[in-house]
Amino acid sequence: MNKLKIVMIGAGNLAFHLSKALTEENHEILQVYSRTISSAQILAAQIGAKATSNIQLLDKSADLYIIAVSDMVIAQIIEQLDFSNKKVAHTAGSVSIQVFNPEFKNFGVFYPLQTFSKSRNVNFKEVPVCIEANNEQFELFLFDLAKQISDSVWRINSDQRKKLHLSAVFANNFVNHLYFVAKDIISSTNIDFKILHPLILETAHKLLELDPKSAQTGPALRNDSESLKKHLELLSSTPEYQAIYKMITDDIYLKHKRL
Amino acid sequence: MNKLKIVMIGAGNLAFHLSKALTEENHEILQVYSRTISSAQILAAQIGAKATSNIQLLDKSADLYIIAVSDMVIAQIIEQLDFSNKKVAHTAGSVSIQVFNPEFKNFGVFYPLQTFSKSRNVNFKEVPVCIEANNEQFELFLFDLAKQISDSVWRINSDQRKKLHLSAVFANNFVNHLYFVAKDIISSTNIDFKILHPLILETAHKLLELDPKSAQTGPALRNDSESLKKHLELLSSTPEYQAIYKMITDDIYLKHKRL
Repeated sequence: MNKLKIVMIGAGNLAFHLSKALTEENHEILQVYSRTISSAQILAAQIGAKATSNIQLLDKSADLYIIAVSDMVIAQIIEQLDFSNKKVAHTAGSVSIQVFNPEFKNFGVFYPLQTFSKSRNVNFKEVPVCIEANNEQFELFLFDLAKQISDSVWRINSDQRKKLHLSAVFANNFVNHLYFVAKDIISSTNIDFKILHPLILETAHKLLELDPKSAQTGPALRNDSESLKKHLELLSSTPEYQAIYKMITDDIYLKHKRL
Repeated sequence: MNKLKIVMIGAGNLAFHLSKALTEENHEILQVYSRTISSAQILAAQIGAKATSNIQLLDKSADLYIIAVSDMVIAQIIEQLDFSNKKVAHTAGSVSIQVFNPEFKNFGVFYPLQTFSKSRNVNFKEVPVCIEANNEQFELFLFDLAKQISDSVWRINSDQRKKLHLSAVFANNFVNHLYFVAKDIISSTNIDFKILHPLILETAHKLLELDPKSAQTGPALRNDSESLKKHLELLSSTPEYQAIYKMITDDIYLKHKRL
């Protein structure tokens, strides 16, 4: 694949990591767009690109336009793109490919399935990238590009992708919230939350070898009513945690009885 | 610390890993007890110990008796121990030290905070071990023993330990159930669940650097009502997942608004 000239629309966590991965493969980010010019400038400065906050001033000479903004504004951005003969891809898990104007010649999705924070390096080679496009040629183009930055590239249609994104919400956002709850519970004991780190890591790493069904342990699985009662009492001052506790405990018990 | 002679009461996942870690430090497991003689025999054979399923036949010559049975039967086991001049410790997160007969001279808790499966090796050096005892001398004894097998030994009283155990239920059992749900959602798409492995690992590893509050991302945090609505629709055939989704989403939103 030749060196591509790319315009990055968006300057958030994903735009940041994706731009870095692309420039490391010798592609050129011509320009970074963000509604907030300072955000565009910060990312642009790091990858030798120009910055703009005016969508009308997007560089028309790029080989590819990547839309890496939050899900809610993708449709607005697309509406404002005044070219239909360019190659354009969005990067969102939950947004259908049909968000694109069908008059566009080449449109698609380039969805990296990972959680990104600016302060944390990610090895992009290990990030699964999900590809979809409106025609085979552009799908191959996106596939080849993804293959350059990742060892894990998947052809995933919009129906599959929305379910995948939903399951990622459970496996990432909701899991992280349970870490938050665990930390909150520990905070009253003066024990450092770090004491839970090995357990948290092992819980994740176990999954590489064991199915989550086989990996399950604990009082809910054993239907250990005494522990369950004690836990609910301990949570009496936080009814929201009590409710989460009850609901997940009931579902663990049911799923492991039934399946 | 001299080589100890130990009786292991229990032959489950924890007894298995703990016995291995202790024998690797040249302590001797004299005997393994389990209600099921075949379970006792399997573990005993691996560590050169004798096996029994008769609690009256416990070897009286041991320096330490470790009770590694499930929480619910610890009290029953202790009732049946017909000696009070021995050193005894249980290994449960959720059971108070007061479960012991106060006539016992030395009793305590030796709680490894980790999830154990027989099929998976655990580096015991990284497992936090929580120690508590009825007197300082025995506490020091347990502390020194724990230090031999782990680099992470903590003095934790029963009140702290029950909260710690509760937070471990959130961070391990409940997190694992969310992996289960994620897999269940993906199963209808024909996409291999492995596609979520990098996200699951990164979600856990991120915590070593970032507080769970800073690490949170996703539609609940952004209050992205369109994504939330779409997700609830996708879950319409599984009301139990819908209920979990709503409850955790609401709590993410509230906690990040309020704190």
